[in-house]
Amino acid sequence: MRLVRYRKGEHTGAGALVGEYVHDMGDGPLGRTRPGPRVAALDEVELLAPCDPRVIVCAGSNYAGQIAEKQRPWPTQPALFLKAPNAVVGPGAAVIRPAGLRRLEYEGELAVVIGRTAREVTAASFADYVLGYTCANDVTADDWRADGQWARAKSADTFCPLGPWIETEIADPASLRLSTLVNGRTVQDGSTSEMVFGVGELLAFVTRWITLQPGDVLLTGSPAGVGPLVPGDRVEIRIEGVGTLSNPVLGPQPPEV
Amino acid sequence: MRLVRYRKGEHTGAGALVGEYVHDMGDGPLGRTRPGPRVAALDEVELLAPCDPRVIVCAGSNYAGQIAEKQRPWPTQPALFLKAPNAVVGPGAAVIRPAGLRRLEYEGELAVVIGRTAREVTAASFADYVLGYTCANDVTADDWRADGQWARAKSADTFCPLGPWIETEIADPASLRLSTLVNGRTVQDGSTSEMVFGVGELLAFVTRWITLQPGDVLLTGSPAGVGPLVPGDRVEIRIEGVGTLSNPVLGPQPPEV
Repeated sequence: MRLVRYRKGEHTGAGALVGEYVHDMGDGPLGRTRPGPRVAALDEVELLAPCDPRVIVCAGSNYAGQIAEKQRPWPTQPALFLKAPNAVVGPGAAVIRPAGLRRLEYEGELAVVIGRTAREVTAASFADYVLGYTCANDVTADDWRADGQWARAKSADTFCPLGPWIETEIADPASLRLSTLVNGRTVQDGSTSEMVFGVGELLAFVTRWITLQPGDVLLTGSPAGVGPLVPGDRVEIRIEGVGTLSNPVLGPQPPEV
Repeated sequence: MRLVRYRKGEHTGAGALVGEYVHDMGDGPLGRTRPGPRVAALDEVELLAPCDPRVIVCAGSNYAGQIAEKQRPWPTQPALFLKAPNAVVGPGAAVIRPAGLRRLEYEGELAVVIGRTAREVTAASFADYVLGYTCANDVTADDWRADGQWARAKSADTFCPLGPWIETEIADPASLRLSTLVNGRTVQDGSTSEMVFGVGELLAFVTRWITLQPGDVLLTGSPAGVGPLVPGDRVEIRIEGVGTLSNPVLGPQPPEV
């Protein structure tokens, strides 16, 4: 099933896609288990981010291809960081490049959406805690990594596009093709099979200390090929069996160097 | 006014303290502007964290005393990091020391609670966006700073005690005595006048990029004297004109070294 959050006129709701139609799902993606009455055609609504996370926990350097490309050491444990919820935007919403920034980057990622309170989850049972999967763009202000802690670099407003929907029918998240396109050109082309720590291992590691709630999100890292975005670009994250998350980039042009 | 969130039996609500009594405040600390009917005596309720932040943004190395003590360079801009909302606990709730950790630390801090959507706030107008102030303990797993990014070090469950209430009548947050006691012994004794970047400057810096919503929290740094906590300790953060936040520390003893 594909779970969405949508806006139609003044109304905001949770729905499920049945063919090209949005059906009502009650108070939230977790409100119903079966789609209710038809609400609208997909092209009559604005899709929002498909969940409303409080915690967005992310694994850095988690793809073999990116580790090789950046000549980073092979990780011995997941490298966690946080994004803050103010950063979340939905499919089609603009990523705003902050003024004065030299380099803004895309990072295409598989996002895991939590379905049940998850604490001390085991890698073997992780699927019981997952509602489904969506696409994420871990937008990053490269200049601000120099701050040391990445609060600004990773959590500025609009730096976490999520969507277009939560796909609940992914049997194996470890064998999905993941690609990123900028203005239609493929710039990342990897597979979730390259993850150093798989979804189950990441959830087990995170939930030893951090309790995740329904709607919270785990970002699982990005393949090789991370690169720049400038205003006017359109960036798409495509994940096999999930869908395509597409966002325009707006904001001031990069400063003259 | 002192705004609280409380639990009484099965009921959870928002209230205001009038003398030793909790009065109803509607759906949240922002639900009413004047206290409603009396609900209970203060000693009949369990106080919860006084707000329910989605974003907890923190300034590191923001007290002259701590910078001198740790021989850190004088900062040229606020050093931001995040805590995740899973870490929040209320007054009296246990701080749980994770298994296997060598050193858990307290950091007593003044917490600013946001009252209005805050974006591109100016330092001169910051008070318009502040609901009030409470005490925070920025509990930190010192070992895990070595992760590089501080997601585990700062955001494990129970690592963000807040409370006991939001004091809305602080005219000047830049002249408050702030002390931390462990088992009744004073271990930090500073003043918010030592802040390198004041509340207004911090809010202006943060909200250039990060939109804060009502109930979100800004932690403003800790004075000299940060030190260890072990299971069995009781840690208190006292801020003049605000109140005292007291929490016991539980969990496994430190490993043998």
